[in-house]
Amino acid sequence: MKAAPKFTLLAVTLIAAGICAEAIAQPKPEDVIEYRQAAMTMIGWNFGALAAMVKGKTAWDAKEFSLRAERLHTLAPQALEGFAKGSDKGAQTDAKADIWTHPEDFRSKYDDLVTQTSALSEIAKTGDEAKMKEQFKKTGAACKACHEKYKAD
Amino acid sequence: MKAAPKFTLLAVTLIAAGICAEAIAQPKPEDVIEYRQAAMTMIGWNFGALAAMVKGKTAWDAKEFSLRAERLHTLAPQALEGFAKGSDKGAQTDAKADIWTHPEDFRSKYDDLVTQTSALSEIAKTGDEAKMKEQFKKTGAACKACHEKYKAD
Repeated sequence: MKAAPKFTLLAVTLIAAGICAEAIAQPKPEDVIEYRQAAMTMIGWNFGALAAMVKGKTAWDAKEFSLRAERLHTLAPQALEGFAKGSDKGAQTDAKADIWTHPEDFRSKYDDLVTQTSALSEIAKTGDEAKMKEQFKKTGAACKACHEKYKAD
Repeated sequence: MKAAPKFTLLAVTLIAAGICAEAIAQPKPEDVIEYRQAAMTMIGWNFGALAAMVKGKTAWDAKEFSLRAERLHTLAPQALEGFAKGSDKGAQTDAKADIWTHPEDFRSKYDDLVTQTSALSEIAKTGDEAKMKEQFKKTGAACKACHEKYKAD
């Protein structure tokens, strides 16, 4: 069972090297965009459930929080494949072209999301409600920082 | 790092108990449907990449296969939240109403998908190409068995 974390790390490593995207037989731009939007929908679904707990709209459940934090930790790096070169157009998308004209800045902001969700999943394992809520805010800030610059209103 | 597998197991357990779905502040049917379709899109994205390798359309890469098999292993149980009660209508969907009128049969077929993707991720760790391809076929059969009965053409 020790192997699971290895795959999580491997995911980040392979994606960072762009190997995953290349491994797929060059998917069509519209398919990459659909995948990108699907990944963001799944991230939003779990983030929304955490937000509901943090805001007191649903009962606080540390195990539930940890489960969704772990999901965000594994979904964040997966979504990066959805920003492959050439997927700036091909279907309706809120992703701004600046993502592909400023890849280094986009990547630095994206990497922060991966970092914050990873920290969220680790902190969630402690069950410390205050620290979990604090890290949730940092995770939300990482989402916002990238959306403000690279996502159309 | 030993904790990661615990969360994977926890996901299946909580979802089996329907706790996750309840934890979300009763999302709208259209949002559940969007989440369901997003989860299936992510599953299809990774399954498609494995199929390309199995069919020789892309180069065989055991590590790449393992990475995507692990993703399918974690995505499969997550998608189940997308079949929450009341999400049979509310937006365009290929999910047949029989899913909610025959929940036990649907669940047994869905559980087989979770079982097969779990086995796929474990077998993929061995790097045994023949066994990985064999389990890939069993996983595809699990997808097909459910789609044939519960997914509209």
